Amino acid sequence: MQTASLLSIGTELTLGQTVDTNTAWLARQLAALGIRAVRHETVADDLEPIVAAICRGARAADVVLCSGGLGPTDDDLTRQALADAAGCPLVLDERSLEQIRAFFEARGRKMRTANQVQAMVPAKGRLIPNACGTAPGIEVTIEETPVFAMPGVPSEMRAMFAESVVPRLSRGVPSRVLATRTLRSWGLPESLVGERLRDLMVRGGDPEVGTSAQEGEILLRINTHADSSADAARKLDAVEATIRERLESAIFGREDDTLAGAVGALLTAQAATVAVGESCTGGWLGKRLTDTPGSSAYFLGGATTYANTTKSAVLGVSESLLEQHGAVSAPVASAMAEGARRVFGSDYALSTTGVAGPDGGTEEKPVGLVFVGFAEPAGVEARSFRFGSDLSRDQIRLRTIHTALNWLRLHLLKR
Amino acid sequence: MQTASLLSIGTELTLGQTVDTNTAWLARQLAALGIRAVRHETVADDLEPIVAAICRGARAADVVLCSGGLGPTDDDLTRQALADAAGCPLVLDERSLEQIRAFFEARGRKMRTANQVQAMVPAKGRLIPNACGTAPGIEVTIEETPVFAMPGVPSEMRAMFAESVVPRLSRGVPSRVLATRTLRSWGLPESLVGERLRDLMVRGGDPEVGTSAQEGEILLRINTHADSSADAARKLDAVEATIRERLESAIFGREDDTLAGAVGALLTAQAATVAVGESCTGGWLGKRLTDTPGSSAYFLGGATTYANTTKSAVLGVSESLLEQHGAVSAPVASAMAEGARRVFGSDYALSTTGVAGPDGGTEEKPVGLVFVGFAEPAGVEARSFRFGSDLSRDQIRLRTIHTALNWLRLHLLKR
Repeated sequence: MQTASLLSIGTELTLGQTVDTNTAWLARQLAALGIRAVRHETVADDLEPIVAAICRGARAADVVLCSGGLGPTDDDLTRQALADAAGCPLVLDERSLEQIRAFFEARGRKMRTANQVQAMVPAKGRLIPNACGTAPGIEVTIEETPVFAMPGVPSEMRAMFAESVVPRLSRGVPSRVLATRTLRSWGLPESLVGERLRDLMVRGGDPEVGTSAQEGEILLRINTHADSSADAARKLDAVEATIRERLESAIFGREDDTLAGAVGALLTAQAATVAVGESCTGGWLGKRLTDTPGSSAYFLGGATTYANTTKSAVLGVSESLLEQHGAVSAPVASAMAEGARRVFGSDYALSTTGVAGPDGGTEEKPVGLVFVGFAEPAGVEARSFRFGSDLSRDQIRLRTIHTALNWLRLHLLKR
Repeated sequence: MQTASLLSIGTELTLGQTVDTNTAWLARQLAALGIRAVRHETVADDLEPIVAAICRGARAADVVLCSGGLGPTDDDLTRQALADAAGCPLVLDERSLEQIRAFFEARGRKMRTANQVQAMVPAKGRLIPNACGTAPGIEVTIEETPVFAMPGVPSEMRAMFAESVVPRLSRGVPSRVLATRTLRSWGLPESLVGERLRDLMVRGGDPEVGTSAQEGEILLRINTHADSSADAARKLDAVEATIRERLESAIFGREDDTLAGAVGALLTAQAATVAVGESCTGGWLGKRLTDTPGSSAYFLGGATTYANTTKSAVLGVSESLLEQHGAVSAPVASAMAEGARRVFGSDYALSTTGVAGPDGGTEEKPVGLVFVGFAEPAGVEARSFRFGSDLSRDQIRLRTIHTALNWLRLHLLKR
């Protein structure tokens, strides 16, 4: 098994002004290649700490992957740090300069002088082309360890890693594969999941199963080691089957699957369509459904009726219903779902109305009280939910969305 | 200046299955208290590495903050690791057991046996109550350094840090304050921002200014040291004034401000309202506008017309317009904005229609081609944008949203 040191560079990271998403992404990609990330380090935009961290990383693992500090401004010091760590000067790479100039020309813009520095490279290293931006990456050997420096912008880092770094890493065939799988569940508390899977979660087991909670979802993480990817897949498949048997329909997907994606797959398979009528979720439920490419096959549209007058004008909720029960009520949730189904001409419709907070709660209708409506050909129903008042506005809205999606998912599963 | 070691615990983090947002949040909170996070480390759910990392952290800084590994399942090992690192056994805390039981009872659920382990504490330490969940935190002194262990669930960690850890940290008054400020800009390329602010971005300057790019926004990070918070604020105010003068209306906010929030503040100040008509953004534009609590004062609602028939049925876009120009066109964007303004009865309306990809692009209308419409009392206008085909579906949708919001923002600024 090969090992990797990961290094994130940027004062915005050490000070917490930006969340580092690159490290997690890289660790996952590396695991799939049989390379285990053994160290994560984050350093600020200062030359000496970057040089020191590069050298520490090179000593501790078989490969070093850095991200950040390759931009055109004076606080981008990774180029200089790599040259210092490799003990060589920075030199200008004419071909890269041409590529950066061409990048700007293709977009009808003129290259600024500041961007010229991005064509500098340690004399012992080589530049890695960047198809998505102006900052080329750098590859250089330090203390006999290959070091790959990539831009910090996640989209550029990901493209460069996939296109230019993976082929270089794959030269050393891993002796043993580390394979991971994540299953996602909705609706069971973590402690109950733990009880049902206790025998699978024994420390040091193989495969090893662990749980974690994430915005109301309970994730099942499965890791295993094997001599080949095929062996690993067989082991993961077996334990996945056991988990699915014990947690039943609570499992809605794997890896980056979402409840919205699971709903989309079921709608596609059943050639059915959905629309939404939203209040407290403000369009987020529609956003979730359209996150999936190709969702136009089953998502017809949605109305966000935030003001009460628009609930009547757009979704046809009767004014007397609004007066009698208030906007946050089961009858209004039902009427919104019915209205969305009728206006958009869909098979199914989901609706949301609630108090997302932090203000606007009353004793009768506190923050966290939410009604979800579900309309289908056979009729309409609304259910009330009481999400903890300790949750944030975003968390209450997200639980509302997941609850609505899961209702439709369970309905479609039974058909 | 006090220093802190941050330690994140969880195999889901080292394998990259979950992105660590706790570290960035904690670093930011600590900076505000005058405590600099000097080390970030991430370790897997294995007893020995956790014990080792706790001891390393305790030796390297004045305080250690851990998150994760306090849940009820067998892969939650932080409790045991703290006891081992402190050289003492784990004991049951009866009062905490009662609190955990009460937490479940208040929610009408029964405490599961698995949760009992969460009331265990190292004999030399003490439990920190958890108002938002079942996992209490733990405080224990290791190698003469205070160590605070908090749950990994971000909402629980944040509440516990604010309520129970901050009062303990603030006992040692920092000798010198580290203050940071972030300004957010939209519309200028990073290299141009760098040219205009070159003199402010000199390494080692005080205040020190750095830039970073994030989903099309350019962030200006300003850091300074001072003897008091008031001194620091004065220094930050002065450099902020200079930056605003040079970048003008491109600066839309500070810290966690958003374009949607900036638009909301302007609408509120002008007592104006907005509605949206969305296609490619699928509800996300409305979601952004309603992220702000109290947005019901200016956001009336929105229609997501994903299917072409719904563009006509809900927003009144004429079928001949759709046939003649196609859904992704300036005339349709204009008609959608006009329709949204009329249907929802708002002062302004924004619309979006485009090819978000990854599929569905043609030579004439490639992925990344987007039209944004803007309707106001004086008329309607649509503009076309060509976002790079190297961007993901989500990135194209997000740039579309920011572009639309910024259009309205600049319009409102001129009024």
